[in-house]
Amino acid sequence: MTVSPLQQVLSHTARALIELRGEPAAAALAEQFVRRVEGLDDDEMTELLQTLLADFGHNHEALVDAVDAWRDDPTQTTAQAVGEATESARLVLFRQLNTAGDGIRCLLHLRAETLARRRSYPELAPVDHDLEHLLRSWFNRGFLELRRLDWSTPAHILETLIAYEAVHEIQGWDDLRRRLDTDRRSFGFFHPNLPDEPIIFVEVALTSGMSASIQHVLEPRDDHVDDGPEPEVDTAIFYSITNCQMGLRGISFGNFLIKQVTALLSTELPQLDTFATLSPIPGFSRWLADARPDIDTSNQTAMEDACAHYLCVERSRGRPLDPVARFHLHNGARVERLNWMGDTSAKGMGESHGMLVNYRYSGQDLEANHESLVDDGIVIAAPDIVDRIEAPEGTVATSPQVVD
Amino acid sequence: MTVSPLQQVLSHTARALIELRGEPAAAALAEQFVRRVEGLDDDEMTELLQTLLADFGHNHEALVDAVDAWRDDPTQTTAQAVGEATESARLVLFRQLNTAGDGIRCLLHLRAETLARRRSYPELAPVDHDLEHLLRSWFNRGFLELRRLDWSTPAHILETLIAYEAVHEIQGWDDLRRRLDTDRRSFGFFHPNLPDEPIIFVEVALTSGMSASIQHVLEPRDDHVDDGPEPEVDTAIFYSITNCQMGLRGISFGNFLIKQVTALLSTELPQLDTFATLSPIPGFSRWLADARPDIDTSNQTAMEDACAHYLCVERSRGRPLDPVARFHLHNGARVERLNWMGDTSAKGMGESHGMLVNYRYSGQDLEANHESLVDDGIVIAAPDIVDRIEAPEGTVATSPQVVD
Amino acid sequence: MTVSPLQQVLSHTARALIELRGEPAAAALAEQFVRRVEGLDDDEMTELLQTLLADFGHNHEALVDAVDAWRDDPTQTTAQAVGEATESARLVLFRQLNTAGDGIRCLLHLRAETLARRRSYPELAPVDHDLEHLLRSWFNRGFLELRRLDWSTPAHILETLIAYEAVHEIQGWDDLRRRLDTDRRSFGFFHPNLPDEPIIFVEVALTSGMSASIQHVLEPRDDHVDDGPEPEVDTAIFYSITNCQMGLRGISFGNFLIKQVTALLSTELPQLDTFATLSPIPGFSRWLADARPDIDTSNQTAMEDACAHYLCVERSRGRPLDPVARFHLHNGARVERLNWMGDTSAKGMGESHGMLVNYRYSGQDLEANHESLVDDGIVIAAPDIVDRIEAPEGTVATSPQVVD
Amino acid sequence: MTVSPLQQVLSHTARALIELRGEPAAAALAEQFVRRVEGLDDDEMTELLQTLLADFGHNHEALVDAVDAWRDDPTQTTAQAVGEATESARLVLFRQLNTAGDGIRCLLHLRAETLARRRSYPELAPVDHDLEHLLRSWFNRGFLELRRLDWSTPAHILETLIAYEAVHEIQGWDDLRRRLDTDRRSFGFFHPNLPDEPIIFVEVALTSGMSASIQHVLEPRDDHVDDGPEPEVDTAIFYSITNCQMGLRGISFGNFLIKQVTALLSTELPQLDTFATLSPIPGFSRWLADARPDIDTSNQTAMEDACAHYLCVERSRGRPLDPVARFHLHNGARVERLNWMGDTSAKGMGESHGMLVNYRYSGQDLEANHESLVDDGIVIAAPDIVDRIEAPEGTVATSPQVVD
Repeated sequence: MTVSPLQQVLSHTARALIELRGEPAAAALAEQFVRRVEGLDDDEMTELLQTLLADFGHNHEALVDAVDAWRDDPTQTTAQAVGEATESARLVLFRQLNTAGDGIRCLLHLRAETLARRRSYPELAPVDHDLEHLLRSWFNRGFLELRRLDWSTPAHILETLIAYEAVHEIQGWDDLRRRLDTDRRSFGFFHPNLPDEPIIFVEVALTSGMSASIQHVLEPRDDHVDDGPEPEVDTAIFYSITNCQMGLRGISFGNFLIKQVTALLSTELPQLDTFATLSPIPGFSRWLADARPDIDTSNQTAMEDACAHYLCVERSRGRPLDPVARFHLHNGARVERLNWMGDTSAKGMGESHGMLVNYRYSGQDLEANHESLVDDGIVIAAPDIVDRIEAPEGTVATSPQVVD
Repeated sequence: MTVSPLQQVLSHTARALIELRGEPAAAALAEQFVRRVEGLDDDEMTELLQTLLADFGHNHEALVDAVDAWRDDPTQTTAQAVGEATESARLVLFRQLNTAGDGIRCLLHLRAETLARRRSYPELAPVDHDLEHLLRSWFNRGFLELRRLDWSTPAHILETLIAYEAVHEIQGWDDLRRRLDTDRRSFGFFHPNLPDEPIIFVEVALTSGMSASIQHVLEPRDDHVDDGPEPEVDTAIFYSITNCQMGLRGISFGNFLIKQVTALLSTELPQLDTFATLSPIPGFSRWLADARPDIDTSNQTAMEDACAHYLCVERSRGRPLDPVARFHLHNGARVERLNWMGDTSAKGMGESHGMLVNYRYSGQDLEANHESLVDDGIVIAAPDIVDRIEAPEGTVATSPQVVD
Repeated sequence: MTVSPLQQVLSHTARALIELRGEPAAAALAEQFVRRVEGLDDDEMTELLQTLLADFGHNHEALVDAVDAWRDDPTQTTAQAVGEATESARLVLFRQLNTAGDGIRCLLHLRAETLARRRSYPELAPVDHDLEHLLRSWFNRGFLELRRLDWSTPAHILETLIAYEAVHEIQGWDDLRRRLDTDRRSFGFFHPNLPDEPIIFVEVALTSGMSASIQHVLEPRDDHVDDGPEPEVDTAIFYSITNCQMGLRGISFGNFLIKQVTALLSTELPQLDTFATLSPIPGFSRWLADARPDIDTSNQTAMEDACAHYLCVERSRGRPLDPVARFHLHNGARVERLNWMGDTSAKGMGESHGMLVNYRYSGQDLEANHESLVDDGIVIAAPDIVDRIEAPEGTVATSPQVVD
Repeated sequence: MTVSPLQQVLSHTARALIELRGEPAAAALAEQFVRRVEGLDDDEMTELLQTLLADFGHNHEALVDAVDAWRDDPTQTTAQAVGEATESARLVLFRQLNTAGDGIRCLLHLRAETLARRRSYPELAPVDHDLEHLLRSWFNRGFLELRRLDWSTPAHILETLIAYEAVHEIQGWDDLRRRLDTDRRSFGFFHPNLPDEPIIFVEVALTSGMSASIQHVLEPRDDHVDDGPEPEVDTAIFYSITNCQMGLRGISFGNFLIKQVTALLSTELPQLDTFATLSPIPGFSRWLADARPDIDTSNQTAMEDACAHYLCVERSRGRPLDPVARFHLHNGARVERLNWMGDTSAKGMGESHGMLVNYRYSGQDLEANHESLVDDGIVIAAPDIVDRIEAPEGTVATSPQVVD
């Protein structure tokens, strides 16, 4: 394989950076490397990742020696030496990149590009492994800051909400403003090195009773009285959670975010007694077409029964089949209510025949519910939901205690 | 060995924290653990560190299996699996602690305590290894922020300068204020999770010509005209560099700090043409007593000759013997001038018979000087210094080119 | 005249506030008064202003006595006592309102409402006099802060730009963002008690050469390279200046703003050598219809000749007839260039047949130009402009020196 | 009288500033004037103030004309014209100075200097009148911001506390730190144009029960547990209130400060049920020597009786004789308790034989107490105090109701 001049430059810079480990002189080189990586096209990026795989792995001989030493004398110290010998040169390179102003953004970019090539270039897995290892360490929860996002937030940060929101697209600034109104809340986690865009953000509606329709949540406010949430508010509805960084896939903050926001809202608004989501069921239509091809999709009762079954009983590798259900049920929420025609948008009709679901977060039950799922494989759901399911034994219950 | 109830509690909490990896519920437990660790006395701390060594190492069987798999198929992926198998349980614990408000401070405390037991309990080395590994990753230079420290800095931060300054003790607030006057500068590196105390800070005097006496630098300003540095200023003297975190020993930021401050001052005050230190020579008296027991210590010439030899020729394991010389020469500075009676304090007279030295930082020479030392073992010094040394060949030169 | 219960309450509160001068207890009353004033409809506001006129004037007897004392003994002290005796009760009331959170906004509101009734209720002039006197004192230039407005400004402040911009309406957030792009600048003056909205703001385009068309300035950027102004930029075009506070009419900050922004941009971008406006000519069409009813409005040369005459020669009470010309020429700018079809919007075509004009601000000439206009009544214009005018003697010149 | 060249320059600059009213060009001149005023020595300052008096008064002819017009037609409009005609040229000058960076500090300085010459040059009263008029307007309570002062406040602001505290001198930084500890509070009012020093500040001790000794309040904390006020805290003691600006004499903020801090502490610490001062009695010794020359000053009972009489009964022009009593009683506080040997410092022994007094602020009584004093001349005191006084009728009572 011939190596392009660009890759030669990149390789050379990478080697120099690795040698300058701990030296101030590395910063300028790191800047150069980051600038170059930003400008790569698709093929060049593939070539770079292949180079990082092939030429920047660990030192095989050193590992052989370290393993031999450990086998002769298997102590913690020799084991740690083995661990060090498994560290690849690219890991050193990645750590050096952080001295560049945009270093961490470059690492996120490299991981997103690696993940995007998972199917076509599965051999890149070790590169992904190193990136994930480093990002998981640097995005440790203890480094993230929870910030409220509202109409006094700088415009360039709000703009990222419009750009990233994937669950229910934000239709420009008027829509955004409605979502940041006084009867709404939005919060995001921020990393010190990425102060201008959230890692993840959540949108919350403060309502009277649990919302059943996303269109109702998103519609313009009738009576625009800008005086905070109305007095009869008793429920916080988490209607959208958006991860902004592809490069952090698998490093989850959603459960932290929901629980921290719940705690914060409880303090600010003591009248809130219900915390729940209004969630999509992205896999329902696909599963239904396959498992119940003959169902009359206009029959609300039949559809709700099928959906209850889908959410609570169906599993994939032991875990709930639906990805959104998987996330909330793993967090300890329970399946609370199905909402027929809860999302009548094209996307909603397409993915779940318009059905939405509320998952409820009850502080005192979260841990027991979570353990019920993880230890016993049993999903916790409201009685109305469980009643809809035939032969639920061993898969669903109304409370964790039932299983004992 | 009987285990105390306190250690049982700590162990139990630690195990729970490790199991809760990635769960929000861990935060409260981490807070408890941190609070308890803060309250430990010396013996209890030793016991905790021993427990972390004995009961929270890596999984030996898993490592055996991973190594076997790697020997069967020695790929990057199997090597990475070996690396993971060498990770100790305490490393997972340490990462979890960061979710507590004071988590990172607790880790710094644990490492300082481990280092303090290096001699008495050398077996704790694997615990230190894990702590250093983690802290080195989290205190990556890219996460540190350079901040100017002056009289408008919050008092509780300035107070840490008084507490930590070790080179030339700060005698209360009046002395501090003089060091933050308009003809002085101070800068520190700060970490986002420790916003209230610097990791390391430097004190700089803006002077006309290179200072020869630390007492002169520290004495009160004659004519207190509060209008910034005087017009004839042409030199920045780094007269004190202080590491504030024992727990970061071996993770050096001094070279970054000097170079970044040099760059910043060059921009702010273009009239500066000399950047140099006014440095102690902490090992001179001890070496002199041993190597030149008969020298007349009141003979300035003889003492300066001896000191030039000590700084430029003496080595320990191939590196300059004096620890401060080692630091600056490794950074690429050169030995510029000796200052007889430069520090007449008890400390100065005791450690170096009052001698101080200026190390000069010249932007364009730093890299070549550094390489001269590292590659060829040759210290670079001003001609006046080299002239004082007999038979300097192969150990000292006036410029890197000379060696070619 | 019967007095409504509402006015009785307002009067009563006002009296109480005046009596509580200097007392903390006034704050709560001031809040009440401000809340009530906010809720008044048009008729109620008229009634309030009439009450403030009729019942809250100065004390006539006290003034008579003070004047008598002054006539007996005409000193500075007795004259000052006369001045105090002319102070109305409503002035005391207005000063007290400031202790309410929104007090200053209430005063601005009261003045805007008074000004809006100038024609229908000319008798309210003394109320306006007091409000203007107080606002002029409190909006002293020394209290205003110049702030840059860009895409990192909080959204609720940017929103005020959209709401207030009157010269060239901002068409939503995309348009706004273009105006805050890296080749644009915007600055506003802010008052400490109104931190969330500018008093006045200016929009500037950084261009290569002097812009001739507002549509060109406002159109989307072709090649969105977000790297600051382009290298060939040499001109700053002030294309819009907007006063946001009706209540500050007659208290001008526009000249301060232009000159401070000019100074600031000169420092930031030393390559700028031309500072000019791209300005509307709001009175041209009206004047033309009256003065030159037979002109062929499609004949560019004839129209430019007429416009040059209109801007430079026509006067109203000794000052330039066109209000925008009046402002810039009084500031010391000169008439630099006419731009045929410079504004092809409906508004531009309507008010000036699409003609725009550049007024040029040359630091060193401003004072002399200003004095030429004020002392000698002579407008300064570029030679190309003067050449278009017949018999300009005594009204226009190419430089101030010419008049000597 | 010959005029010095310096005064000629100052006069000339002042005239130019007055002419440039409303022009940006004035700013540079204002800076010059302010710089020059800062450098004046005592005699030069006197000369400047005399010039401001003699040459920068009002226009006598214009006032004569305005008064004539008003007499012909005595309307609000002609009265306002009279008021304008009484405005002096120096008032215009003073307003212009504010455009300089340090303009407001210069005005405060001018007033302080004028007040310092009140006795020697009583003819300067009209200059003081104009300065007070302007400063009173610009230091309107609505422009001041209440800020907490604690150990995280910038050092240069804390330094002003040490410099200004006059009631109980701060003995350096250790003493200051103790006063800012977690069981203490300090708050100041700040003006937007003087962000680095308070206008006035108050020091508060959070205690269990009402403090009787200032030495006890100021002594170092025994058990330094840095965890906020102790659980049994129920009282806030205002033990020092300091005005920092001589130039604001007569423009009082003390009552606002006490009441706002009381409100703020009530919210933060709901367990507080008593708000009181621990106050000096600066005029007691002097009065006693005169009124009771034969008293045995070591007899506690006799001294307390005399002090109760002095505080509650003695009057000067209808108001309480003691200046500190005058302030707190006017605010609506009541005389609560005498503290024998409450201040054993030389200052305390000298001015009041060591006696201190607590004035108590009870939210609901303040207004009635204040009116009792102002309307009926009756001081409100605790029963224990009233019992000590002979023939208190008409001068003192235990509650406002008693007088009805």
